[in-house]
Amino acid sequence: MTQHTHQVRIYYEDTDVSGMVYHANYLKYFERAREHFIGPEELVRLFEEEDTAFVVYKAELTYKEGARLGDELEIRSRVEAESKYRAIFHQNVHRKGHEATMVEGRVELVCVNHQQNLVPLPKSVVDSIAKLQASA
Amino acid sequence: MTQHTHQVRIYYEDTDVSGMVYHANYLKYFERAREHFIGPEELVRLFEEEDTAFVVYKAELTYKEGARLGDELEIRSRVEAESKYRAIFHQNVHRKGHEATMVEGRVELVCVNHQQNLVPLPKSVVDSIAKLQASA
Amino acid sequence: MTQHTHQVRIYYEDTDVSGMVYHANYLKYFERAREHFIGPEELVRLFEEEDTAFVVYKAELTYKEGARLGDELEIRSRVEAESKYRAIFHQNVHRKGHEATMVEGRVELVCVNHQQNLVPLPKSVVDSIAKLQASA
Amino acid sequence: MTQHTHQVRIYYEDTDVSGMVYHANYLKYFERAREHFIGPEELVRLFEEEDTAFVVYKAELTYKEGARLGDELEIRSRVEAESKYRAIFHQNVHRKGHEATMVEGRVELVCVNHQQNLVPLPKSVVDSIAKLQASA
Repeated sequence: MTQHTHQVRIYYEDTDVSGMVYHANYLKYFERAREHFIGPEELVRLFEEEDTAFVVYKAELTYKEGARLGDELEIRSRVEAESKYRAIFHQNVHRKGHEATMVEGRVELVCVNHQQNLVPLPKSVVDSIAKLQASA
Repeated sequence: MTQHTHQVRIYYEDTDVSGMVYHANYLKYFERAREHFIGPEELVRLFEEEDTAFVVYKAELTYKEGARLGDELEIRSRVEAESKYRAIFHQNVHRKGHEATMVEGRVELVCVNHQQNLVPLPKSVVDSIAKLQASA
Repeated sequence: MTQHTHQVRIYYEDTDVSGMVYHANYLKYFERAREHFIGPEELVRLFEEEDTAFVVYKAELTYKEGARLGDELEIRSRVEAESKYRAIFHQNVHRKGHEATMVEGRVELVCVNHQQNLVPLPKSVVDSIAKLQASA
Repeated sequence: MTQHTHQVRIYYEDTDVSGMVYHANYLKYFERAREHFIGPEELVRLFEEEDTAFVVYKAELTYKEGARLGDELEIRSRVEAESKYRAIFHQNVHRKGHEATMVEGRVELVCVNHQQNLVPLPKSVVDSIAKLQASA
């Protein structure tokens, strides 16, 4: 399976007094990458026109090396549709162009409507997943 | 005019690599204080039942001394209804029990409905302002 | 094992366009609870005088029910020292006074010095863990 | 005086329950733009090698139109060195390619060393300001 790559720059807002990136922020970077994988316009269209929002059901992070102010990171994402209701993203943080994994993530997503009821993954997202997998 | 006091504890999430609180976060503390001034339940009721949300129209901050990890701060707020559409909050950050002002804030609020149209300040808020002023 | 309880109020800053609390923020609430378990003054003392900072090594979250604007939450934490280098926090989010778990968390912590080298858990923290466990 | 342009994408993390971008976040976007104006590597070099950090002394924001999920914004910055100690940034938020100002900002910056003592603006920054002004 090939991967989707999204770049993140580390600013003052991302760091804490330890000098490193605050640990919760990596969940934000993972979500930014997923929003670009789906496409920001498509994400808004799904929300407004198809009453479909993405909800994280489960998240696991393993922290190996912290990022710092000014760093350029790459979020490398692979994804699988585990069922018609659930997508699993494997998302790792790398320093730009480097192979060592800084943070390893696994995020399970489901879709809900505005009443918080489960709905199937949208066709556009299922297609994007298939397309990413086929590009291997 | 007397003031409303709200306490804020500084956690890792609030700081940045400089060792101080990240400058944008004081706007969050000011808003937390305003939400307690209005009352969290009343705020939700206004949003859900009266289609009334609060929007910051203007904010001014002057930074004199930075807060650090573990600090206990007090947000001291005075407020006036400048017109039936606009409330002005004067909100200052102090170290708990100290007189020196660390950050000085002035925040102008208006109310809007879900179509982003201006609506008058709700009666409950006008009353809370009058009550705070009368308590002098 | 008994548990440590920390209360969290949900403000505008905590929510996102879905109307629920943004998923990454629960990691912040878990950390706030851990900072109070250790003691904010002790946390600062360890950082400044003993060159000891806490680093999250692994975090797992399972989201069952989202919190909303105005909610009062309780973070209920149990903790064990798995080795002299590693503490494991089991941290769950509840609506205040309710038994249903909204978010289930498991956070592994280690300690490092300013060179990012592993150091043992501080005595004060090992003692706090033993005390919490003994209070059963 | 010509201007520096920095692009910002609006993600879930940026929004709140009102459906709009949380008001404090524009201060983050202004800072990201300033970090790119100075140069992320130069910013880190000043911090680590010249013991010089940037501190916001004063910030003023006027909110005219809120941004939403998926928006592409431009932060357009002009800057002047008011004295050898103080730089003033005029920073406005626009929808990408549009002329209407969504948020109008004015941010006064000074530099401090790690003891929080005032130091002059670094030569590299004074030069960047002169260069931006000369490019008119």
